[in-house]
Amino acid sequence: MLMFESALTEGAVLADALLLQTSQAELLGRIRNDALLSASLWVNVALAGLSVLLFVYMGRSVQSPRAKLIWGATLLIPLVSLSSYLGLLSGLTVGLIEMPPGHALEGEMVLSQWGRYLTWALSTPLILLALGLLADVDRSDLLVVIAADIGMCLTGLAAALTTSSYAFRWAFYLVSCSFFVVVLYALLAEWPAAAEAAGTDDIFGTLRTLTVVLWLGYPIIWAVGVEGFALVQSVGVTSWGYSALDVLAKYVFAYILLRWVADNQDTVERANAGAVGTGAPADD
Amino acid sequence: MLMFESALTEGAVLADALLLQTSQAELLGRIRNDALLSASLWVNVALAGLSVLLFVYMGRSVQSPRAKLIWGATLLIPLVSLSSYLGLLSGLTVGLIEMPPGHALEGEMVLSQWGRYLTWALSTPLILLALGLLADVDRSDLLVVIAADIGMCLTGLAAALTTSSYAFRWAFYLVSCSFFVVVLYALLAEWPAAAEAAGTDDIFGTLRTLTVVLWLGYPIIWAVGVEGFALVQSVGVTSWGYSALDVLAKYVFAYILLRWVADNQDTVERANAGAVGTGAPADD
Amino acid sequence: MLMFESALTEGAVLADALLLQTSQAELLGRIRNDALLSASLWVNVALAGLSVLLFVYMGRSVQSPRAKLIWGATLLIPLVSLSSYLGLLSGLTVGLIEMPPGHALEGEMVLSQWGRYLTWALSTPLILLALGLLADVDRSDLLVVIAADIGMCLTGLAAALTTSSYAFRWAFYLVSCSFFVVVLYALLAEWPAAAEAAGTDDIFGTLRTLTVVLWLGYPIIWAVGVEGFALVQSVGVTSWGYSALDVLAKYVFAYILLRWVADNQDTVERANAGAVGTGAPADD
Repeated sequence: MLMFESALTEGAVLADALLLQTSQAELLGRIRNDALLSASLWVNVALAGLSVLLFVYMGRSVQSPRAKLIWGATLLIPLVSLSSYLGLLSGLTVGLIEMPPGHALEGEMVLSQWGRYLTWALSTPLILLALGLLADVDRSDLLVVIAADIGMCLTGLAAALTTSSYAFRWAFYLVSCSFFVVVLYALLAEWPAAAEAAGTDDIFGTLRTLTVVLWLGYPIIWAVGVEGFALVQSVGVTSWGYSALDVLAKYVFAYILLRWVADNQDTVERANAGAVGTGAPADD
Repeated sequence: MLMFESALTEGAVLADALLLQTSQAELLGRIRNDALLSASLWVNVALAGLSVLLFVYMGRSVQSPRAKLIWGATLLIPLVSLSSYLGLLSGLTVGLIEMPPGHALEGEMVLSQWGRYLTWALSTPLILLALGLLADVDRSDLLVVIAADIGMCLTGLAAALTTSSYAFRWAFYLVSCSFFVVVLYALLAEWPAAAEAAGTDDIFGTLRTLTVVLWLGYPIIWAVGVEGFALVQSVGVTSWGYSALDVLAKYVFAYILLRWVADNQDTVERANAGAVGTGAPADD
Repeated sequence: MLMFESALTEGAVLADALLLQTSQAELLGRIRNDALLSASLWVNVALAGLSVLLFVYMGRSVQSPRAKLIWGATLLIPLVSLSSYLGLLSGLTVGLIEMPPGHALEGEMVLSQWGRYLTWALSTPLILLALGLLADVDRSDLLVVIAADIGMCLTGLAAALTTSSYAFRWAFYLVSCSFFVVVLYALLAEWPAAAEAAGTDDIFGTLRTLTVVLWLGYPIIWAVGVEGFALVQSVGVTSWGYSALDVLAKYVFAYILLRWVADNQDTVERANAGAVGTGAPADD
């Protein structure tokens, strides 16, 4: 190691730690001082927490093994969401990003909520897992769709963190959309047949439409919001867009699914037992 | 890009790289100079390495496909643990964290072994995979429990890295414990029935009790140690707590499991073949 | 928080953001100015993009559910690769690493393409998933091999990022190779029997040999290239080594697999239906 480094060591590590830390505290302060932004995050903490409590309460009546399994996967959705919003509020998973040349906010520092993309890589696979279990799709099929979904979230994260070039931000965006197309193809063209065979096509149809419509909202917000074309230049308004979608795509989605599972444990169990192809309607 | 930035570029990237690098070397030095801390890490490198060699040797006698599968999953546990401790010792996955206002060590720089939480996100799923294969639980059930387990580890990581607020550290801790409750529920209330059906309930009972008791130790050490209430303020003592639990929950756990599998390949294979419900005891 | 920190906060967070950002832009510039290095990355962006388009086109004729599944998993391989190379080109997933004492380039700053290791943790599991589906191996077996594979990639990442010690770089390298041995064992000793039972042994044999031979090339390049013994000291030449392997192990691999699946949908479907052990040759 070079001479001057040895002299630096103690100082450097303290400076480095201090710098990162001060940033986190400062980011927490920035969020706290922006009432609109702050509200968009706290409302999700509250709703995610309430959802967990409600779902645990609703779970008491769930008896059959397969219904319990879907219930378990669904319970994790608001728990992951809660973690996500705590990360944003604490300043741990947000950062200041200077927009690259070509962007509408070129040279300005924009608060990036990059933690959203990271936690979506855990929460959206759970939503697909719940949908896949409901439709009783092949397990390998589920793995492929979850892999595409994780690819979608991580390239979204890359788009959010790229500050060197405007073109590369959109390149990542397009690759993320390509992964999304694979997920959409499974949800719209492949899984409905499995759900029909399992006798869960009514509820699967409802939840699939909800998911497809709401999930299309995320890339639209990205394109319109501060990170994309910046037609909306307010970090708080952009954040509210994502937060509102999360409320519907996560807690409302999970609530509809759980209420159906609690009321239709026989249908859920029959699907698992292989009593398929009878075309029997859900017994609700 | 602003004018002064272009002038900075070459210098900035070098300064940035140097800073991060110097930190890593300095952290390696700090650990090397703390004999208690250093020993708590090296003892695990040694035991993990010996476990890998021992398990490969024990694996020679394993013939049946399903027994080989459990053996493979178990062999990975000490390999991941070895990677984890190399990360801590090299300074790559540790950092100096300044404790936030409200913490007993407020304003002091504490060495955080955040890499532990990150590698647990890979090693603990392997333990659950081995237990789940032993009990022959439903594969989707296993996926849900592993998802909860990864959530538990990653929110633990978030708790360790949060320096902006004492309250948020504990909020992450509580969410992490909630994920843990889901894992505990599966281990205690769901999987025992599957293990009974598979004829592996004796060994499953032993390993489940070992796992549940030891895993409860981790959040207790966090709460009592330097990262939580700091009743124990020594980084070395806290590290020894985790290291001792790792020895029991990983190498001893894996050894007991592998010895049983090697001695009971017939039982293991029978479970897979669907010859369940006979209540036949393990044939050792 | 200490007094002087509160004064620092605004400045620190801006300095921190600026530093990281300037780095990314500077790294993008460095890559752009190195024609050899730049070409090694752009050629993969082009080939990955063309592969995606070609595979979507080839997928039109795939009808059977299981063939569609293998096709879906294979399509994701060039998409992940495309993301990986965009990450390297944008400067997001590369960094300057000062080589530790003992290394041939001790004290010099070397451009590390650490993003390669990170994205391999998503792309190589997809290759194993495609191979495992083709051979119709047990799903839990697949999970264990994928876990070993992820361990291999992440310890490779740790080796690339360790700057504090030359010995620890090689320690991570050896652990990564140990994970690789587990993967090789499955590919060479376990899966061929499953492929034979599924009637896919011809194509599985071809693709397995291709994969094993090419994957052995990666640790050899690491050892010979700038990150290891530095017998080759050019970042561009080392990068070309990885890029050439990626072309063969990803796009060519995927093309051979997809062409076979499109031509042999009956065989693929029969394997799934449990009509195994007939030793019927592929019907091409």
